Amino acid sequence: MSALHVQQGIPQPEPVSPYLKVKRKKRLSVDEYIAEILAGNRVVLSQAITLIESKAPQDIVIANQIIEKCMLHSGNSIRIGITGVPGAGKSTFIEAFGKYLTSIGKKLAVLAVDPSSERSKGSILGDKTRMEELSVDPNAFIRPSPSGLTLGGVARKTRETIILCEAAGFDVIIIETVGVGQSETVVKSMVDFFLLLMLSGAGDELQGIKRGIMEMADALIITKADGDNIAKATAAKALYKSALQLFPKNENKWEVPVDTCSVFLKESIENIWKIISEFEKLTKENGFFIKHRTEQSIKTFHDWINDLLQENFYSNKLIEHKINDLIPEIRAGKVSPYHAGIELVKEYLKK
Amino acid sequence: MSALHVQQGIPQPEPVSPYLKVKRKKRLSVDEYIAEILAGNRVVLSQAITLIESKAPQDIVIANQIIEKCMLHSGNSIRIGITGVPGAGKSTFIEAFGKYLTSIGKKLAVLAVDPSSERSKGSILGDKTRMEELSVDPNAFIRPSPSGLTLGGVARKTRETIILCEAAGFDVIIIETVGVGQSETVVKSMVDFFLLLMLSGAGDELQGIKRGIMEMADALIITKADGDNIAKATAAKALYKSALQLFPKNENKWEVPVDTCSVFLKESIENIWKIISEFEKLTKENGFFIKHRTEQSIKTFHDWINDLLQENFYSNKLIEHKINDLIPEIRAGKVSPYHAGIELVKEYLKK
Repeated sequence: MSALHVQQGIPQPEPVSPYLKVKRKKRLSVDEYIAEILAGNRVVLSQAITLIESKAPQDIVIANQIIEKCMLHSGNSIRIGITGVPGAGKSTFIEAFGKYLTSIGKKLAVLAVDPSSERSKGSILGDKTRMEELSVDPNAFIRPSPSGLTLGGVARKTRETIILCEAAGFDVIIIETVGVGQSETVVKSMVDFFLLLMLSGAGDELQGIKRGIMEMADALIITKADGDNIAKATAAKALYKSALQLFPKNENKWEVPVDTCSVFLKESIENIWKIISEFEKLTKENGFFIKHRTEQSIKTFHDWINDLLQENFYSNKLIEHKINDLIPEIRAGKVSPYHAGIELVKEYLKK
Repeated sequence: MSALHVQQGIPQPEPVSPYLKVKRKKRLSVDEYIAEILAGNRVVLSQAITLIESKAPQDIVIANQIIEKCMLHSGNSIRIGITGVPGAGKSTFIEAFGKYLTSIGKKLAVLAVDPSSERSKGSILGDKTRMEELSVDPNAFIRPSPSGLTLGGVARKTRETIILCEAAGFDVIIIETVGVGQSETVVKSMVDFFLLLMLSGAGDELQGIKRGIMEMADALIITKADGDNIAKATAAKALYKSALQLFPKNENKWEVPVDTCSVFLKESIENIWKIISEFEKLTKENGFFIKHRTEQSIKTFHDWINDLLQENFYSNKLIEHKINDLIPEIRAGKVSPYHAGIELVKEYLKK
């Protein structure tokens, strides 16, 4: 007989109603949210981002009001996308780069786009532990990717989080790609500057990046250029440099630099910030910076409409059944994808 | 007084009713179309393609039936996409390459994807005159891009034309990009092999191609490698070769070759066909060829549904008005593209 059973004779406290048990968090008004965010209150900023990620209708209404009001105070940051081949040391780089930025007085937010985070929930905690020092830096704010969303959903939340972070006074926003696949394109579509981290010893390492990513980069940085690796990294730099010369020029007149970097050398990290600052200066002077952001907004608008239309179409049960029947026929070359598509959409629009 | 007026006294023939004047072309039945196409009747093939391009409802019904029946006899060709920087001599290359193919017993169809052909109607006639010898070759069939369609529309017509041409016994189908912009991506999505023609003297010439095209190529050919240009072309070949080594490997295990080419040298043209044949052999052996085609069909299906949904949405007058009001607000950063998108789509779906 265990000690627990001995206590059976003692009168138990009345069971508390589950409704009473719920400690209702006092909800702030929209104006209170705005005031606190503008004042740089990070707890409220976090709560507001959680509202953005919520699927509850009442949260969505408030989230939209917060975003619209924050938009008037947003835009004053440089948005930097960072991607890299597996093994390039993205987290280590962001940690070192971020620490440098806060040391020169910048306020930094690090966000992530990771459409796979539903499956690998570990990465959510991972973000904080991977960047040990940065995560306790009072001038840095790290927010992992929302989970359980499609790529379009993650993109939306991340874009809206950028607005909130900018309103809260963060002047450098880093958006990191975590998953592989399309997330690079999505991150590229929401940043001013896209940084690609590479490893020296081009070859098998490149298997991990998608074709086309190299041509999206605004700078190409070869990491781990320290110790025995310096010579290899310098050789890789020369190789990538001549390769990039073969690419068509960017509309923004920016010549994509190739450089090496070691997180152990301050000058090396400083150099990356110098590159980004030069890019910002050039594109602000030649008008590309603002033109690019405006184009991004308009494209976001149309892409989002597109997402919504598709979501509504594909979530229709009847359509889903018909598609399941059609796909094998299309695969087998028996049915034209065009004819099948027209019939389906006609059926869908009839209702 | 002119000779015409002298004739005024002579009795004129009764004016013919405009209805009777129309010389009604006897329309073939679907089975007759199929029989003639399968027999390689090029006149009927042309008529069937015209049906595909028609917007008349009765034509669309027949066209769909023809396509579905031809699908059972299609697929037996190699589909080659050809694009190039301006000045690379695409037409001259296709003329020489095409003549070579017919000389070794191939039946060749040359199609074009040119979403701009509505504006520059000259290019429609141009296709035939640019390829003087090929256009009179009994084993070659040249069909210009349909005009007056969106890029999605041109893509659809071209894909369906491929099916008809294959059913008619053409075993090499060349699809040429004519316009600039997105047409390369669209052509890439409908071919087995994508050939990129470049010029030596990398630099300003590259301004004309879109970023990302190089990474889509299955072979990179430097044209005009003759006369004084040989040394420059050979140097360019070495440069591109080392650049391509930096790109991530293709899923199909194909190593993208870089070579020079002169339309004046038979071996040079022969070499291109050798490259394509090797690609076909490798990818048919490793299963990529058929996998790739199946994936293309499924993607076409979804992309087309997407096109149709968008077309229906954007052609809605009320939506159009609202979008015109919203765009400046989004540009100015006053309205969130997400919020605006949701409200619009809700409104659209209500009806």
